[in-house]
Amino acid sequence: MDYKQHFSSRALTAKNSPITTLFKIIQANPDIVSFAPGTPDPSVLPAEKFPALTQQAIDKYGKSIIQYGMPQGFEPLRKAVLPLLKKRSITATADNVHISTGASGALNNVGMVLLDAGDTVLVESPTYNQAVSDFLAYEANVQEVACDEDGMLPDALEAQLQKQPVKFIYLLPTFQNPSGRTMPAARRKQVAELAKKYDVLIIEDDVYYDLRYTGEHQPAVYSYAPERTIYLSSLSKMFAPAVRCGYSVMPEPILEKVLMLKQYIDMFTSQFNQALAAEFLAGEYDAFIGSLCKTYSSKLATMQQALKQHMPAGYTWDKPEGGLFIWLTGPKAIDTAALLDKAIQTGVAYLPASAFFLDPAEGKNALRLSFAFPPEDRIEEGVKRLARVLQEA
Amino acid sequence: MDYKQHFSSRALTAKNSPITTLFKIIQANPDIVSFAPGTPDPSVLPAEKFPALTQQAIDKYGKSIIQYGMPQGFEPLRKAVLPLLKKRSITATADNVHISTGASGALNNVGMVLLDAGDTVLVESPTYNQAVSDFLAYEANVQEVACDEDGMLPDALEAQLQKQPVKFIYLLPTFQNPSGRTMPAARRKQVAELAKKYDVLIIEDDVYYDLRYTGEHQPAVYSYAPERTIYLSSLSKMFAPAVRCGYSVMPEPILEKVLMLKQYIDMFTSQFNQALAAEFLAGEYDAFIGSLCKTYSSKLATMQQALKQHMPAGYTWDKPEGGLFIWLTGPKAIDTAALLDKAIQTGVAYLPASAFFLDPAEGKNALRLSFAFPPEDRIEEGVKRLARVLQEA
Repeated sequence: MDYKQHFSSRALTAKNSPITTLFKIIQANPDIVSFAPGTPDPSVLPAEKFPALTQQAIDKYGKSIIQYGMPQGFEPLRKAVLPLLKKRSITATADNVHISTGASGALNNVGMVLLDAGDTVLVESPTYNQAVSDFLAYEANVQEVACDEDGMLPDALEAQLQKQPVKFIYLLPTFQNPSGRTMPAARRKQVAELAKKYDVLIIEDDVYYDLRYTGEHQPAVYSYAPERTIYLSSLSKMFAPAVRCGYSVMPEPILEKVLMLKQYIDMFTSQFNQALAAEFLAGEYDAFIGSLCKTYSSKLATMQQALKQHMPAGYTWDKPEGGLFIWLTGPKAIDTAALLDKAIQTGVAYLPASAFFLDPAEGKNALRLSFAFPPEDRIEEGVKRLARVLQEA
Repeated sequence: MDYKQHFSSRALTAKNSPITTLFKIIQANPDIVSFAPGTPDPSVLPAEKFPALTQQAIDKYGKSIIQYGMPQGFEPLRKAVLPLLKKRSITATADNVHISTGASGALNNVGMVLLDAGDTVLVESPTYNQAVSDFLAYEANVQEVACDEDGMLPDALEAQLQKQPVKFIYLLPTFQNPSGRTMPAARRKQVAELAKKYDVLIIEDDVYYDLRYTGEHQPAVYSYAPERTIYLSSLSKMFAPAVRCGYSVMPEPILEKVLMLKQYIDMFTSQFNQALAAEFLAGEYDAFIGSLCKTYSSKLATMQQALKQHMPAGYTWDKPEGGLFIWLTGPKAIDTAALLDKAIQTGVAYLPASAFFLDPAEGKNALRLSFAFPPEDRIEEGVKRLARVLQEA
């Protein structure tokens, strides 16, 4: 049977995330030091708390938490995230908050609400590859905007806004995936002003905000343009990926459509999981984030030290103030995608930067390292292996 | 700010499920006897088992169940549903099974994989309204096929297959939502043969299968055409809606695309929830289904008895052999959508049948009753109230 003729055009061009492909290899080879996925350190996952959280949630909220729920989300969790939003200069009430099936659930849902075939979306360069795949699934015309270390360049952004009607600007302003970069407050304000001037929406994908190890918190882009910004965050990195709880704030008319379409996408997000998250946030959340930041900050320092010590000449990298990623750039002649097989054979995994550009040739000589997943005492060995592969290239 | 101009065309025509709207009214008025949603009886939800299941799952599978997971699903749950599938004459291995975020998650995902704008989809008449809304969100051309009490009429189906290229046939063959009807084996085979003859796919939405109170189980449509059928089921009614675990089986090339696109939709379904479900299935699942069927079967009998006793002349209804729904048809002049407000004021809620037809005028004089949700000792009172409203219409 020929299945291809039955597929939609988006299915014909769909591909696996590079992580999905790498994951199987990494899982089968525990000796590989994996800097590839932005996966939490298994040692920080509070699994031992889950039985007690489950008992608390059932005692406090009753049976109805395992019943059908409403698309907007479980009210106690919508209330519990308000202090997190407030830290980001986002003023909201529980009525403005939506709990989604992960931040990715909200991103896809918003894409469905906003995108018709051919609509133009502006993204950072580099940007989060899975978001681009999602926008392409709605047949959007995705275009990159040139960036410096502070994020989108206002002149480049304005030039593209002048050139064509734009549906929205997609930003990851804090400890960006993949670059680790953070957009300073002044630049956030400039981008928001341009969005106002050209009457376009902003999607602000901000899942790493609480993972700041040094420096000052920056206000959310949302705070400069609440009437046109869809703010997305998540508890995947701050509690557990498998609770699948994203939280978002957006203008009421957009939220109304998001909730309508969510009824066809997955009906509602588990309010059992949301009740566990609400109980977790009500407990020792601040202490938990403190210990999370301590763990990751130490791993970041270890990786920085190892890079300094072992990287061959011609390689540069940033020191991010938080998040999970370091962006490494090498000599022009290097092809990190071509080197990945050899790296895996040598016992180290990373993500080639080509995954994060519309034109894979753009990221040829760069790669993304995450210091979050491997045990801290394996980081230096992983960097040594990487250095060896790059040295011999 | 004018938000409308920023919406996709699907968002402009999106609407709330009638249940979402009714739910808020029902929740605020506990005196209303609600026959509206197909929501499980709260008394059968095994919430008290969740703390122990959580402990068991963590002990057995370790911390990794709260970490990121793979799009196909958690292997122990994929294995645990194989006996359920076997009962339905579906031969599969864990490699063929996919765990989705509810059956609705799989249905939307499959829609995304198969549907381009303008593709024709054939559905039963009446059919599940939320599925139609999802297909319309992918800009499908949805057409009804005439049905009798055994489901789609083969002649009517063939006439529509001859008329135009069709992407897939969407069927709910067992205790259909909304009609409660079941398609007998012979009709299932005929529909499968027609799908083969015209080389179209079938989506078989089969979430009520295990809720059979009398009569014989019918083999899944999948078993007659495994090369072209996407079989969807769920643990929402058989365990708890909030575990959000659907399970599905489909041809490998389709599964491959579904898993690719799922990475953009919600990345993966919580393997914490999947681990709870696997533990539940490994435990006293058969005994649980037995007691579930006993509870619902008794409620069905109570509702049948009350309808017989109180319904005014001119009303007819089926006696389904399982599931959650009874379909009630009245005199031609009756308009059940127009009567809903009065019914709610009288203290009873139902779903007007107009929600389940492409042309709302078609279901004008019918309505869907679910006997699952209200306590059994409130069913007669609810039916009396309904009879009063209909009598006075």
